[in-house]
Amino acid sequence: MSSVPSDVTSSGEHRLSRLDEQGKHTLFTGARTANTFAETPVTDAELTDIWELAKWAPTSANSQPLRVLFVREGEGRNRLVKHMDEGNRAKTAAAPAVAVLAMDTRFHEYIPALLPHKPELKDVFAGNDDLRVGSASFNATLQTGYFILAVRAQGLAAGPMSGFDTAAVDAEFFPDGRFHSILVVNIGHPGRDPWYARLPRLGNDDVLQWV
Amino acid sequence: MSSVPSDVTSSGEHRLSRLDEQGKHTLFTGARTANTFAETPVTDAELTDIWELAKWAPTSANSQPLRVLFVREGEGRNRLVKHMDEGNRAKTAAAPAVAVLAMDTRFHEYIPALLPHKPELKDVFAGNDDLRVGSASFNATLQTGYFILAVRAQGLAAGPMSGFDTAAVDAEFFPDGRFHSILVVNIGHPGRDPWYARLPRLGNDDVLQWV
Repeated sequence: MSSVPSDVTSSGEHRLSRLDEQGKHTLFTGARTANTFAETPVTDAELTDIWELAKWAPTSANSQPLRVLFVREGEGRNRLVKHMDEGNRAKTAAAPAVAVLAMDTRFHEYIPALLPHKPELKDVFAGNDDLRVGSASFNATLQTGYFILAVRAQGLAAGPMSGFDTAAVDAEFFPDGRFHSILVVNIGHPGRDPWYARLPRLGNDDVLQWV
Repeated sequence: MSSVPSDVTSSGEHRLSRLDEQGKHTLFTGARTANTFAETPVTDAELTDIWELAKWAPTSANSQPLRVLFVREGEGRNRLVKHMDEGNRAKTAAAPAVAVLAMDTRFHEYIPALLPHKPELKDVFAGNDDLRVGSASFNATLQTGYFILAVRAQGLAAGPMSGFDTAAVDAEFFPDGRFHSILVVNIGHPGRDPWYARLPRLGNDDVLQWV
């Protein structure tokens, strides 16, 4: 894979590729949140491949505060399911794989390695808890968006759920208090009748403004 | 475009497509934040097409709280540039198009239209400011991640910036207090020397856990 993501024209400008219609369909226009999953397993290698895509998308100051706990079937899954809202328990129990996405509130410890031209930013974050946790929350949530689309990019269906007891999940899996869970995502191949009717989207006039 | 995003097998399961290597390159593995832009214009139709992709990706309770202000060149741009951090002013002034991404703190007014099987959720949000603003922030930030990847999906380069005076931008463009800006994104075709050396990513062992 080339390190330059485009062709360079004779004038020194770059031409980027766009997704073809099939690619837009896979990620955006045709993709749906799955509510049932086939029994087809999802391997650890496939789960790692999701991260190998999502990790490249941008974060402020290259801070990369998202952490991912993959919960396999069995004992780990049982520990998670009991903290999900009742309406999310059956599908979380049945999904081939589940990811708990969390923010690392001490992400700044990696700043000297991740932002080598500005290592002093570590100390700025260390001295300002509101700035640090706010930045962790914002950037980990951005990365959560990237992660959901990366699941789809790998040919898998995502089932994101915010309906769970975040404090209980943190106590269960992150007892030292450093990581805070933000979203749980079921991952697998869609099963029978996996999709509800698609819900409406806001009209462009409700969302877009021009100045 | 089919409404079913997959082939259905004889057992009733669905097979999803994955992105090909070119598509992964365009969105994730080869994409870069652009710091210079070509003079090639970006049309209003191209900007609308970005939203026509990003709008389909999922939000909690289908709440869709992200709002997008596209700032054209000229007077509108001048009003924005003065509120950017000094290091971001020249590139924001030079970009063919700029988007100010903001959360709608009164997104719940649309809930009866967007979540017709649960319209009463509007009143739950109306009665709980912390829940409502927290949900707006989380879901608008998720959608910000989708938006950045949708820019790339349309063959354009994104330059996301959190370095600006959010209170001043809100006062300038959203004076009634309903929208809160969260990120500014320069959009265009990359110009000369558009990319810095790629910064390192965390190792998988620093990010991924398994249970």
